[in-house]
Amino acid sequence: MTEIQIGGAKRARRGYSLDEVAIAPSRRTRDPEAVSTAWTIDAYRFDTPILAAPMDSVVSPTSAVAFAGLGMLAVLNLEGLWGRYEDAEPLLAEIAGLDAEAVTPRMQELYSARPVDADLVATRIADMKAAGITVAVATSPQGAARLAPLASQSGADIVVIRGTTVSAEHVSSAGEPLNLKQFIHELDAPVIVGGCATHQAALHLMRTGAAGVLVGFGGGASHTTADVMGVRVPMASAIADVAAARRDYLDESGGRYVHVIADGSMGRSGDIVKAFACGADAAMVGSIFARATDAPGRGAHWGAEAWHPSLPRGDRHLMPTVGTLAEVVNGPSRSADGTMNIVGALRKAMATTGYSDVKEFQRVEMVVTA
Amino acid sequence: MTEIQIGGAKRARRGYSLDEVAIAPSRRTRDPEAVSTAWTIDAYRFDTPILAAPMDSVVSPTSAVAFAGLGMLAVLNLEGLWGRYEDAEPLLAEIAGLDAEAVTPRMQELYSARPVDADLVATRIADMKAAGITVAVATSPQGAARLAPLASQSGADIVVIRGTTVSAEHVSSAGEPLNLKQFIHELDAPVIVGGCATHQAALHLMRTGAAGVLVGFGGGASHTTADVMGVRVPMASAIADVAAARRDYLDESGGRYVHVIADGSMGRSGDIVKAFACGADAAMVGSIFARATDAPGRGAHWGAEAWHPSLPRGDRHLMPTVGTLAEVVNGPSRSADGTMNIVGALRKAMATTGYSDVKEFQRVEMVVTA
Amino acid sequence: MTEIQIGGAKRARRGYSLDEVAIAPSRRTRDPEAVSTAWTIDAYRFDTPILAAPMDSVVSPTSAVAFAGLGMLAVLNLEGLWGRYEDAEPLLAEIAGLDAEAVTPRMQELYSARPVDADLVATRIADMKAAGITVAVATSPQGAARLAPLASQSGADIVVIRGTTVSAEHVSSAGEPLNLKQFIHELDAPVIVGGCATHQAALHLMRTGAAGVLVGFGGGASHTTADVMGVRVPMASAIADVAAARRDYLDESGGRYVHVIADGSMGRSGDIVKAFACGADAAMVGSIFARATDAPGRGAHWGAEAWHPSLPRGDRHLMPTVGTLAEVVNGPSRSADGTMNIVGALRKAMATTGYSDVKEFQRVEMVVTA
Amino acid sequence: MTEIQIGGAKRARRGYSLDEVAIAPSRRTRDPEAVSTAWTIDAYRFDTPILAAPMDSVVSPTSAVAFAGLGMLAVLNLEGLWGRYEDAEPLLAEIAGLDAEAVTPRMQELYSARPVDADLVATRIADMKAAGITVAVATSPQGAARLAPLASQSGADIVVIRGTTVSAEHVSSAGEPLNLKQFIHELDAPVIVGGCATHQAALHLMRTGAAGVLVGFGGGASHTTADVMGVRVPMASAIADVAAARRDYLDESGGRYVHVIADGSMGRSGDIVKAFACGADAAMVGSIFARATDAPGRGAHWGAEAWHPSLPRGDRHLMPTVGTLAEVVNGPSRSADGTMNIVGALRKAMATTGYSDVKEFQRVEMVVTA
Repeated sequence: MTEIQIGGAKRARRGYSLDEVAIAPSRRTRDPEAVSTAWTIDAYRFDTPILAAPMDSVVSPTSAVAFAGLGMLAVLNLEGLWGRYEDAEPLLAEIAGLDAEAVTPRMQELYSARPVDADLVATRIADMKAAGITVAVATSPQGAARLAPLASQSGADIVVIRGTTVSAEHVSSAGEPLNLKQFIHELDAPVIVGGCATHQAALHLMRTGAAGVLVGFGGGASHTTADVMGVRVPMASAIADVAAARRDYLDESGGRYVHVIADGSMGRSGDIVKAFACGADAAMVGSIFARATDAPGRGAHWGAEAWHPSLPRGDRHLMPTVGTLAEVVNGPSRSADGTMNIVGALRKAMATTGYSDVKEFQRVEMVVTA
Repeated sequence: MTEIQIGGAKRARRGYSLDEVAIAPSRRTRDPEAVSTAWTIDAYRFDTPILAAPMDSVVSPTSAVAFAGLGMLAVLNLEGLWGRYEDAEPLLAEIAGLDAEAVTPRMQELYSARPVDADLVATRIADMKAAGITVAVATSPQGAARLAPLASQSGADIVVIRGTTVSAEHVSSAGEPLNLKQFIHELDAPVIVGGCATHQAALHLMRTGAAGVLVGFGGGASHTTADVMGVRVPMASAIADVAAARRDYLDESGGRYVHVIADGSMGRSGDIVKAFACGADAAMVGSIFARATDAPGRGAHWGAEAWHPSLPRGDRHLMPTVGTLAEVVNGPSRSADGTMNIVGALRKAMATTGYSDVKEFQRVEMVVTA
Repeated sequence: MTEIQIGGAKRARRGYSLDEVAIAPSRRTRDPEAVSTAWTIDAYRFDTPILAAPMDSVVSPTSAVAFAGLGMLAVLNLEGLWGRYEDAEPLLAEIAGLDAEAVTPRMQELYSARPVDADLVATRIADMKAAGITVAVATSPQGAARLAPLASQSGADIVVIRGTTVSAEHVSSAGEPLNLKQFIHELDAPVIVGGCATHQAALHLMRTGAAGVLVGFGGGASHTTADVMGVRVPMASAIADVAAARRDYLDESGGRYVHVIADGSMGRSGDIVKAFACGADAAMVGSIFARATDAPGRGAHWGAEAWHPSLPRGDRHLMPTVGTLAEVVNGPSRSADGTMNIVGALRKAMATTGYSDVKEFQRVEMVVTA
Repeated sequence: MTEIQIGGAKRARRGYSLDEVAIAPSRRTRDPEAVSTAWTIDAYRFDTPILAAPMDSVVSPTSAVAFAGLGMLAVLNLEGLWGRYEDAEPLLAEIAGLDAEAVTPRMQELYSARPVDADLVATRIADMKAAGITVAVATSPQGAARLAPLASQSGADIVVIRGTTVSAEHVSSAGEPLNLKQFIHELDAPVIVGGCATHQAALHLMRTGAAGVLVGFGGGASHTTADVMGVRVPMASAIADVAAARRDYLDESGGRYVHVIADGSMGRSGDIVKAFACGADAAMVGSIFARATDAPGRGAHWGAEAWHPSLPRGDRHLMPTVGTLAEVVNGPSRSADGTMNIVGALRKAMATTGYSDVKEFQRVEMVVTA
């Protein structure tokens, strides 16, 4: 990124958001049918390199099976309602129906009234395993020491450790902090960890042995994290920086390829396309799926930041639904705004620029726009 | 264009839209009457270097004759309603009257319910020929192998092959793709082909033997192509890049001048002026003409992207009409917003900057604005 | 200005508007009373370096006397209603009261139904002379050959030749065009001429012998000139470029100081301040004065571009009135938006940055903002 | 800052606002409990480096005690209503209830009808001293000669001299101006002085012996100061420039550390975080506190610029209240927009980026965004 002098001795790099960049077709074209979107991480292969984000409005034990049927990996948040309540459906319905003023306090209440229940966690994982799908679950860095081993022993295939910012070296005032490297080494399941947004932070996370790193600072909540905490790294630049860390770590490690997974800031299919163009191997998506008529959120969407007990940094968004999850993923689309047939849009973008797989597509020519 | 490092190893060029540039008068002035806007492509000469875009809301067999009477070339889309239905007028009226939610599914239905009919194609061309006008027709790249020879044999003077992105080298999974160079060589009529938006893509298209190339990715639909597919190249930069390809190809070919035709992103007369200033030889315009009271669209406007069966990338826009087509083209204007007397505006801009023809005007001084 | 490559071989300079720049106080401060805003051009001295623009909504024979009483020079447009009709007051009232759709056609009618009347021109000037004020009148370049000598002979002290773009070398298809240099040489009154917006155009105008040049392309109409004709040069850059031409011409001519008069794009007192900071010697203002309760426009505002018979490039704007002309000029202000006490604001800005006269203030430190 | 050529010979530096920058976490993380926000100026220590601005809507003798209880320093404006009226509460209530059109004239009246009363000033200070808090009071530069010694003798611990722009060298037409250096030297209390916004202006103020300098040109009124006077220096750049002056002065003075206090343009907790990241030692905040249910302004907010008798440069803003002052400061937050738990947000931002105190946090990595 370009170095800019803000004033005096303070320098900063110019970061670009996905809104500021675009794909520029400039060579051959190709039939969309002649394109592969397959994605493999660790021992697991998926038709589509798009993950459903660990948000209660998107992934439930039931919707996870539907996502798998569509060729995608869904991640269940173990610290969400399904890890705390026997039946979360009435609570999901309640959240969707609350007035704007009442929703944040009520979510703070619902998510703190009950702790995460070990038996429920085991049950959720067992149910998804029984459906024959690849099971991925998420925990916060604070919850990882307790929940990740439990999840792995219960049969989870992939564990995601996800926070606003996760670093390889955490300083704690109370007791011994998590040693991420040792923790990942000892866990049976492969780990995806993040968010991060810079070359340095990503490189340190890659060195912990993670199979993938998440780029970004949380789903749809990214904007209010900037308002509340002043933290933001525009997504296009963050992905490109972390992709450079992947390349550097690949060399340093003698060939270990850590997957770069864009997480958040992708509200339309065009944003997902751009994330791959910037260097992502996969994209973790929330709000697009929350627009499905059969999403758990029932037309509402929120992330874990929204129910933080003392410093919420996201809202429950109400969003019009556009079609079934199957239509949102594979079309046909009836809407020209990038909210339906997102896999078709990715295929078409790759075809239009002549690339035959996602890894190749990371080299596509881009422009910066106003 | 300026090279920018987005992050890590990813670089992109900064592209400028027509909104970001303007003309800067800086030398002599001239009477608008002392200016020529004449345009010649292949054997055909026009008073005005503005084409009516192959969109059902703009060009019908009837309106094509009206455009010719105003000194302009209209392009009929053979794959539009007039190539599928005996009488398209009731369908055009229906589309104009539909509710916003109903219009995309209904257009998808109308345009796929009937295939393009060879007899109708021949009839449309014959009717326009009978009116004594220069006949130009458009087909998609997918339809070109069937429709272009048919059109040429039916008497079409100019064939336009127009898609979101058209490349000189298409890779197909099903059968042999179109060899554009051989195809153009064997066709009797001169061919205009596009869209494209970069120097490289344009140069390859020029080498196919095309008489002109279209710059841009489709009419008013450009914005949602960015939302849906992440594809965008800002128009001012795209035109300037393709104009540079024209110059390079002129040298490489020993003197063949391929016309650069800006296609889309020109919603006001000032945008048309800027397109020429950036290096265009002609401008293909849609929405401005759709604002005429006697346009086929009846106050509605849409392009071929809007009725794609599985991935629509444009909407039907309703737009207030401002006056007759003759007034929109030659004035007098009663509206200060660039929607009327577009030829008068072009003349005035050329006069104000002292240039006497369009080719000279491509050298005009410009500024970049915020 | 910074050179930017738009694409291919097309280059453009980055131009800055007044909105994009600001004053940065960085040295001593001063009491507002210890500041002089006096301005002298040719033999005429004014307390305030602000001119009232030749627009019917701002300057009438009556309001010109009021402006003079407030230490300012008002310019009457000889081709406006007062040069065509014995009593323009009912017509001004009619224009202020028309519906938005009706106003442009009616203005086109009113301003073309009657030619400019030589006797009326002489009467207007005589009346203003009789009030003991410095009389300035404006004509278009097309009307200058007839009206400027007439005005001078009738006693006008200063003649303004004002068009969207005025060049020193006009090419005409019909008869001999105006030789501006000879014309100015032969006229008894000093001439202010413009608009122009670049160093080259301004330098050529300075060489014609003009006492002042207008920077800009017409009052409040500047924005639609961009929409209609694609012409725009952002004001801050235009003033700074023309100020550089002033310095170069001062050297070339061995000491002739041609006044740089910013014309338009100054809707708030802060904009006027910035115009001086960029290098203007005086500012010609329209809309701010049209907000006075006693302005001729009666809450409406329009320029000569708005009634062009075939290509209008401006609208009649309705604007809330804020106070009397005396309050708008000298305060006290009751409104924090830069529409009242504009001379007080200029004094305060000069005081806050420590400069004691306008010429010195042209050196003030500035910042570019987003 | 980057130097930009606006045009001709006029150059300007590019200034960045707090909206254009953000924090980029890139190293270790830390528990929020392992972070210190303590701030010490002169002999006074505070838990939180945030000051309540001397605005009648924020600081009253009563609310000053509440701020102190929350670990913060509140500054009472001696020239506000509490310095002029025995009981200001009814007047505060009246201002909050006035119609938008009536409020500026009424404020001009209220603040000029009564002069600042020496006895009242002494009483206010005595009352706050009696509550056992550190007492800070503010005066304008014009009022400083009279009020600052009075305040100091009455027991004020810290004196703030605050104007839109304050320079070390003021030129007056009437009598001898304030010699700031001598004045500060002779005053018993430490002085904080400003606003200023450039390296040079700040360095001169530091040389007067001030304990702290204010960066900025007045609270929420900054925007209309730009409209009215053309004056603006974007806050991020201003803070960074003044922080560089602090470092230069530290060297020049052989170790005197003058505190850099960001003043204004911080409407959300994220803005406060960014101010520290740019180099501020403390932040003086208005509008965030005016949103407290128990703020003196009763849901209204205005600064001293809003009641200037002839050139008001700010408005009374009505703003929805969000919670008690204690909740605004320390949470828990029920709102994701940066208006509650501002100290928690600062702690979390420091923790997320791994810094343990404010001085260290000034080194945090930043990005510039669109």
